[in-house]
Amino acid sequence: MSSDSPASPDSIRPSGSLLLRTMAMPGDTNPAGDIFGGWILSQMDIAGSLLAREIAGGRVVTVAVDSMKFMKPVKVGDIVCCYGSCQKIGHTSLTIELELWVKKIRDGERPERFLVTRGHYTYVKVNQEGRPAPLPESAGARAAAGSDAAAAGLGISAGC
Amino acid sequence: MSSDSPASPDSIRPSGSLLLRTMAMPGDTNPAGDIFGGWILSQMDIAGSLLAREIAGGRVVTVAVDSMKFMKPVKVGDIVCCYGSCQKIGHTSLTIELELWVKKIRDGERPERFLVTRGHYTYVKVNQEGRPAPLPESAGARAAAGSDAAAAGLGISAGC
Amino acid sequence: MSSDSPASPDSIRPSGSLLLRTMAMPGDTNPAGDIFGGWILSQMDIAGSLLAREIAGGRVVTVAVDSMKFMKPVKVGDIVCCYGSCQKIGHTSLTIELELWVKKIRDGERPERFLVTRGHYTYVKVNQEGRPAPLPESAGARAAAGSDAAAAGLGISAGC
Amino acid sequence: MSSDSPASPDSIRPSGSLLLRTMAMPGDTNPAGDIFGGWILSQMDIAGSLLAREIAGGRVVTVAVDSMKFMKPVKVGDIVCCYGSCQKIGHTSLTIELELWVKKIRDGERPERFLVTRGHYTYVKVNQEGRPAPLPESAGARAAAGSDAAAAGLGISAGC
Amino acid sequence: MSSDSPASPDSIRPSGSLLLRTMAMPGDTNPAGDIFGGWILSQMDIAGSLLAREIAGGRVVTVAVDSMKFMKPVKVGDIVCCYGSCQKIGHTSLTIELELWVKKIRDGERPERFLVTRGHYTYVKVNQEGRPAPLPESAGARAAAGSDAAAAGLGISAGC
Amino acid sequence: MSSDSPASPDSIRPSGSLLLRTMAMPGDTNPAGDIFGGWILSQMDIAGSLLAREIAGGRVVTVAVDSMKFMKPVKVGDIVCCYGSCQKIGHTSLTIELELWVKKIRDGERPERFLVTRGHYTYVKVNQEGRPAPLPESAGARAAAGSDAAAAGLGISAGC
Repeated sequence: MSSDSPASPDSIRPSGSLLLRTMAMPGDTNPAGDIFGGWILSQMDIAGSLLAREIAGGRVVTVAVDSMKFMKPVKVGDIVCCYGSCQKIGHTSLTIELELWVKKIRDGERPERFLVTRGHYTYVKVNQEGRPAPLPESAGARAAAGSDAAAAGLGISAGC
Repeated sequence: MSSDSPASPDSIRPSGSLLLRTMAMPGDTNPAGDIFGGWILSQMDIAGSLLAREIAGGRVVTVAVDSMKFMKPVKVGDIVCCYGSCQKIGHTSLTIELELWVKKIRDGERPERFLVTRGHYTYVKVNQEGRPAPLPESAGARAAAGSDAAAAGLGISAGC
Repeated sequence: MSSDSPASPDSIRPSGSLLLRTMAMPGDTNPAGDIFGGWILSQMDIAGSLLAREIAGGRVVTVAVDSMKFMKPVKVGDIVCCYGSCQKIGHTSLTIELELWVKKIRDGERPERFLVTRGHYTYVKVNQEGRPAPLPESAGARAAAGSDAAAAGLGISAGC
Repeated sequence: MSSDSPASPDSIRPSGSLLLRTMAMPGDTNPAGDIFGGWILSQMDIAGSLLAREIAGGRVVTVAVDSMKFMKPVKVGDIVCCYGSCQKIGHTSLTIELELWVKKIRDGERPERFLVTRGHYTYVKVNQEGRPAPLPESAGARAAAGSDAAAAGLGISAGC
Repeated sequence: MSSDSPASPDSIRPSGSLLLRTMAMPGDTNPAGDIFGGWILSQMDIAGSLLAREIAGGRVVTVAVDSMKFMKPVKVGDIVCCYGSCQKIGHTSLTIELELWVKKIRDGERPERFLVTRGHYTYVKVNQEGRPAPLPESAGARAAAGSDAAAAGLGISAGC
Repeated sequence: MSSDSPASPDSIRPSGSLLLRTMAMPGDTNPAGDIFGGWILSQMDIAGSLLAREIAGGRVVTVAVDSMKFMKPVKVGDIVCCYGSCQKIGHTSLTIELELWVKKIRDGERPERFLVTRGHYTYVKVNQEGRPAPLPESAGARAAAGSDAAAAGLGISAGC
């Protein structure tokens, strides 16, 4: 959270597929002018649900969020990326491990990049009535594939 | 999360002061038509920061969020309330325990009320430059006061 | 509206139940940097409709707004509270008296609290087709109960 | 408010200049699916402040809103127009009379148009510090000009 | 785009009907503090679709956007107007020529007005299932009428 | 735009780096329930400016948009990806070629993926005063690198 902590060294790399990438806009700030913590949590929830829906092959709802620490503030104009991979698959639920990274563009310097927070979001597949539904048999294979090139055969891939 | 779980019995009551109360609006929904999980996390972050700022007597930033379970979905039109109290005070940080409740208005019936989720949000007081700053001496007394009538003497009170 | 008028003395207290409480965010400002007047009117409309729906036991629409004066500006970061009570009940309509208060957190000082505006909002109960519908017989009792402890028996209560 | 009241006959015409024109979007709805009353009040406040700023030649704040009745609901997709003219000019304040009209596009029929509500919004000119400031001498002439062709000479005109 | 280019001389006038008029708000800015380019494109799309729906007598979708140059930046508080007229009518599609103008209120000076950008937006009429549908026979007459006084007979008019 | 056109065959792949990835939400719809065209244009503008800022090493403004065709509608819940690469570099300006793709999750089927639209967005680097400024010498190398692995040495990379 302190603004003078060193950026994550380049040897530390995001882990998982790139699930969400966007820019932090002025409309997302808190009264102190930084990006509002709730907006960050929202972007992670969207990112996790994107992967959960691909693996579950249908509608999911968020049922749990693991503890998270916010290591550095996000500022207006920062490039915000959320990476993730599936860590656990149950009968109706699955857990996505998420990392939120920031790339900061700086005049005449190399961009700074650092990890803001990481956490686990758990989703349950639901049917049309909103009740828990079993995950398809292929879910395990899709989850394992992640964003590997091979995953294209399963319809899973980074990007679109 | 299942929509047929019984409502919280009336003997279970929200704990802490009423920090935030609003209505869940159509613009806050996810593609499935329910209220988006990230919106709920955002409202809790706002609610917690409201109390944290009162206790800290100034600007705070969110540094950690504890694990949370979402027990039931929130729907458009639900009355959303966030209750909280200060659980721990350190040198520069403080932790707020939060509960998010819903009251659902139903035609010709008593409103249904239930607990959606609870969690701990931790905030750090920061100075103008965004660096951690010590909490004032009075913080402990303010935190203990919560929303008691007596707290009025410290400038802390439910509402405004 | 002038920023140097004295805060409401502590002897003046909000009247009615706490219907809505939130924080004024940067996204709600006008070009001058203050909170946009239309946002304040919106929060009052939401607050009033929350109580009107509880009393009417179903869907309502706003049909009238009484004259209002804005006594002081609302700033980013202010805690915004809307209080209200039912002033009049007709066959299909009911009128809610609303007060919008602000609590301003100030570094190292007691928070300042003041009344921003008050007004009457009138709602009509409507059926599924959007046509006026009679209020239930219990509406009068519910309206009278307000946020009294006794009101719990009618399903009306401050908070959720 | 009832959805079967006859549309305003074509002989009734909006009065004043066209200050604001936009479309009612899905993100502006209330839980019942109609356009949220607070959004309508917001659009009127924006419309009034646009004219008030032109007449005052600078920054204004909203200080009062007159009573209003909402005669018909606004629906998603409706064309929303706000008309207005200056009714009164004081030393530091001015009052704008506003009318909010809707044009509804209907498949294979002539569009329906009707008056939704009218009201008076009062603004005060403020200086950089947010304190009331005297209106310029030319304000009276500008207010009288309204959107007349002749007003172009004073820099006032409908549109841009 | 350069901020010192001369304002459009008064002899240059917007062409077409006034389709949309609103104020540029702080929530619409980019990280540099100017109004976000995407917001401008959005307002033009709304403006064009308003006229397209009137001419088509029903639902339309955007199918093409012509090249556009942004000549000057839009700032918070600017009055934004979008003018347009129908340039081409096909069997199922129609093309609207749009101009986005700004009027800037300046303390103690005449407002500055200038053209920000112009472009062509093409819309297709669609039926309930979202498939292209033929335009009504009256479309040509309505398109030609534009905002002429005579157009009132066809239900087309500037404003509402 | 017709909803029955075949999905892009898998042999057609997005071209350029993945600049933006998000989910189309209910708050982004037009009155017909599809995702609003202006929102799509906004996401492309954000995506293009993200890459332009990395190449320019600082603040940029949008100065031109090339013609675009919208081939298929975007629906609520769709995964939206924007890909791009730098096509041209001038003294102060650079042009980004952008493609917007959608991945649609379908119950029990492989996701459908298709190209929605492509276009060129041109940006100019500006200094603190908002005036055009020369691109840095390294801009050409950065633009050529795109998202190649080798680009890491220049601080350019897909993701963060």
